[in-house]
Amino acid sequence: MNHYLAEFVGTAILILLGNGVVANAVLAKSKGNSGGWIVITAGWAFAVGLAVYATGRISGAHLNPAVTLALATTGGFPWAEVPGYIASQLGGAIAGATLVWLTYLSHWGATEDKGAKLACFCTAPAIRSTVPNFITEFIGTAMLVFAVMAIGRVNAGNTMDAGEAADAMAGIAATWWSPLLVALTVFSIGLSLGGPTGYAINPARDLGPRIAHAILPVANKGSSDWSYAWIPVAAPIAGGIAGGLLFKALGFAG
Amino acid sequence: MNHYLAEFVGTAILILLGNGVVANAVLAKSKGNSGGWIVITAGWAFAVGLAVYATGRISGAHLNPAVTLALATTGGFPWAEVPGYIASQLGGAIAGATLVWLTYLSHWGATEDKGAKLACFCTAPAIRSTVPNFITEFIGTAMLVFAVMAIGRVNAGNTMDAGEAADAMAGIAATWWSPLLVALTVFSIGLSLGGPTGYAINPARDLGPRIAHAILPVANKGSSDWSYAWIPVAAPIAGGIAGGLLFKALGFAG
Amino acid sequence: MNHYLAEFVGTAILILLGNGVVANAVLAKSKGNSGGWIVITAGWAFAVGLAVYATGRISGAHLNPAVTLALATTGGFPWAEVPGYIASQLGGAIAGATLVWLTYLSHWGATEDKGAKLACFCTAPAIRSTVPNFITEFIGTAMLVFAVMAIGRVNAGNTMDAGEAADAMAGIAATWWSPLLVALTVFSIGLSLGGPTGYAINPARDLGPRIAHAILPVANKGSSDWSYAWIPVAAPIAGGIAGGLLFKALGFAG
Amino acid sequence: MNHYLAEFVGTAILILLGNGVVANAVLAKSKGNSGGWIVITAGWAFAVGLAVYATGRISGAHLNPAVTLALATTGGFPWAEVPGYIASQLGGAIAGATLVWLTYLSHWGATEDKGAKLACFCTAPAIRSTVPNFITEFIGTAMLVFAVMAIGRVNAGNTMDAGEAADAMAGIAATWWSPLLVALTVFSIGLSLGGPTGYAINPARDLGPRIAHAILPVANKGSSDWSYAWIPVAAPIAGGIAGGLLFKALGFAG
Repeated sequence: MNHYLAEFVGTAILILLGNGVVANAVLAKSKGNSGGWIVITAGWAFAVGLAVYATGRISGAHLNPAVTLALATTGGFPWAEVPGYIASQLGGAIAGATLVWLTYLSHWGATEDKGAKLACFCTAPAIRSTVPNFITEFIGTAMLVFAVMAIGRVNAGNTMDAGEAADAMAGIAATWWSPLLVALTVFSIGLSLGGPTGYAINPARDLGPRIAHAILPVANKGSSDWSYAWIPVAAPIAGGIAGGLLFKALGFAG
Repeated sequence: MNHYLAEFVGTAILILLGNGVVANAVLAKSKGNSGGWIVITAGWAFAVGLAVYATGRISGAHLNPAVTLALATTGGFPWAEVPGYIASQLGGAIAGATLVWLTYLSHWGATEDKGAKLACFCTAPAIRSTVPNFITEFIGTAMLVFAVMAIGRVNAGNTMDAGEAADAMAGIAATWWSPLLVALTVFSIGLSLGGPTGYAINPARDLGPRIAHAILPVANKGSSDWSYAWIPVAAPIAGGIAGGLLFKALGFAG
Repeated sequence: MNHYLAEFVGTAILILLGNGVVANAVLAKSKGNSGGWIVITAGWAFAVGLAVYATGRISGAHLNPAVTLALATTGGFPWAEVPGYIASQLGGAIAGATLVWLTYLSHWGATEDKGAKLACFCTAPAIRSTVPNFITEFIGTAMLVFAVMAIGRVNAGNTMDAGEAADAMAGIAATWWSPLLVALTVFSIGLSLGGPTGYAINPARDLGPRIAHAILPVANKGSSDWSYAWIPVAAPIAGGIAGGLLFKALGFAG
Repeated sequence: MNHYLAEFVGTAILILLGNGVVANAVLAKSKGNSGGWIVITAGWAFAVGLAVYATGRISGAHLNPAVTLALATTGGFPWAEVPGYIASQLGGAIAGATLVWLTYLSHWGATEDKGAKLACFCTAPAIRSTVPNFITEFIGTAMLVFAVMAIGRVNAGNTMDAGEAADAMAGIAATWWSPLLVALTVFSIGLSLGGPTGYAINPARDLGPRIAHAILPVANKGSSDWSYAWIPVAAPIAGGIAGGLLFKALGFAG
């Protein structure tokens, strides 16, 4: 049970700190208002880092169904635990979004822009267009899983065996510094690939808070934009699996 | 006596560098004026980091009554030393605020905005409202103590025993990198949770400099805003203890 | 073959994340638009970092013909492998630029400024003038190679023998932290020396994406500015070799 | 002789990258123009970091007469080597400033503001007033030396003996991470204490480039502001010695 609890708590921390920085940057009267892209991407990076530090040793700190599914596909994680991991991640994301709502309690009513309020929960594309939006999330998540597996390999002493790389990733928190490298990876992806869609790159990160937005009594809220919701779920899953398979195929063995 | 001296010096460094960056960002004619939220949060992060490096090995670098009380509550710190620690932290904070006043000596008179001058000493909420302000400081400090205990656990080799986690935190400076992770934790909390109240998350950080503001001959100063002063004292204490208890309750043991 | 494949993949990652951050900062409607120089330089820094983590242990992660040639000149890399390395780097850069084009697919048509679109592929000088532009790229790349060799020496345990320094660099990824230091080196060079020419400091980074710009159906694109193309090729090669020779000559032996 | 050569080269790198970032941020048409305080402070931080990595193991990487004098005063450095160190630092600073002039060769003529051009060489106070300016530089340099000695102590395994702390500092580059901590220290001081005077905190960093400004044919340059020149020399020396003595006096021994 501890594995599932750790995924729940870790994803809640991830969303509290990750969506928290968006709230800080976009909600009216917040002290970080207009902090810009460097604030948002740094905030998400450390959100991931702290979540991995807090829970990585117990559950491997997937915190992301795309990572869980990529590891299961490449053989580094048992399929039997996949449903429990994903449910925990989704539940944790809803809990984390609720904490963001509480943290910024006075600012929802003070903010007029309904799109800005929704952005504190889930992503929306800069230019709405199905195929390009899907491609962007696909590439971003493929890059994430590829990089995280590479860090897992460094973490495990750079063993060259491709088959062991996925396992290595499961022990991402075995060293003090690998969560920091994961944080910098998320920093990098946000800075470089986050422009068109806001880099969901994680189905739980987008769907969980979107559910929270629909449920919570956010002051004067607008639509939860369900028509877009499938893209930041499907594209990260497809991209994550592709990134994992590519890492394994390349392997750089021997 | 060295423990208390280290807490005094460490908290003075914390406030010199932490309130210093606020002064740089908000006082008129300062070269960092309008540097924005990334400047303020980075400045506070490294302020904490340097203070922990300077004094961590001697006193454990609490530098924060909320941390001291959370550790005492969870069994990781003797109650007998609590009064001395808190007095040293408060005294150090007053000393640090005095050094900030000296560092920016010409800029107090050059700045018209009395609220900006007070912000170089203590926090004020973006939207004044007791319950939401309390909640924000409560969540921020709970996150701080939870994360610092997790870093303490990583620091101590990731022992799974919940009871030892608090002790581990007491040795936060036993490795070269744990103060850096504490700094990044404060960076993260500032970026993500600092928007509504300016993240005091430390009673000494807020009350000490507020006392200094009242005492020092700051040029053309305004009110020290005592009506708000109890929130950044009470909420961080309550939140810190809650974060410590939650960490211990979750424990992720075995 | 794995060496060449690793250089191809590593350079593709470098360009995807490096040119990606430029696209984010300059293309119309991108969420990172107007993020400023800190966003661009941080993005390029982590782009290099991730590329080195992903492939460093296999090929040494040159990812840059100027580095390959500097190492061959100073005796740390076999001349026989130089053509294959450079071809792989150039091919990887074209592949990476294609991925950037895909990631920002909707934004090319949305952007009017043809110079901004070209900037997402290759560099252009702020003030066009052959000798100063050449000097800037020369100094920047000399600094890069000098610093990377110094990191290689630290990495190898600070052996003082000048002759071994270049070899040490070849094992840049032998520790978990040396790729991070290389990333910070690129951060530093971008912040400090990138102003006049946009710090190509890498012939493949500039020429490969320029070829991609000429070939790809970028919506409403302008000239690929071939008249400038030789400077970010020739100056980095000359500067890189000079930096390597200077490092070896100084040596700080004994 | 190697010690002196290393101080010369290290200080030249320090100034090339440190003054380079100022040039990038303030000279007309530079790509980093208006990058703001985060760009300037990050640039100076990594400038120090790279300079220490490049030369730390050979000379201890003082790169600053205030550090050299503080170490000599506290017993960690032989007085006989002090003149050679300071001369090398000053010479290196002049060389580094010359490299900045070359790197930004087209931008001096393009920039009208003569004060901006001088700022690419040496510091000037935001509000000119002798006593406050002296105090600011004194506190900043005291903080620098205190922190660097603390890092040296961590570096040396946190030995508690106060007498050994200064010696420990001399081996600042004995680990891969201590130069990184020194860089973050300079980041912190710039963010927090740099507002009133631009944080010279190093006599060679200010005087050397001021000499270069007077000598070099900088296009349409103004005064070298010699009336202010003594403050960023005298105050850092006094502050550095005070910081070293304070660190030794506190000692936190036993």
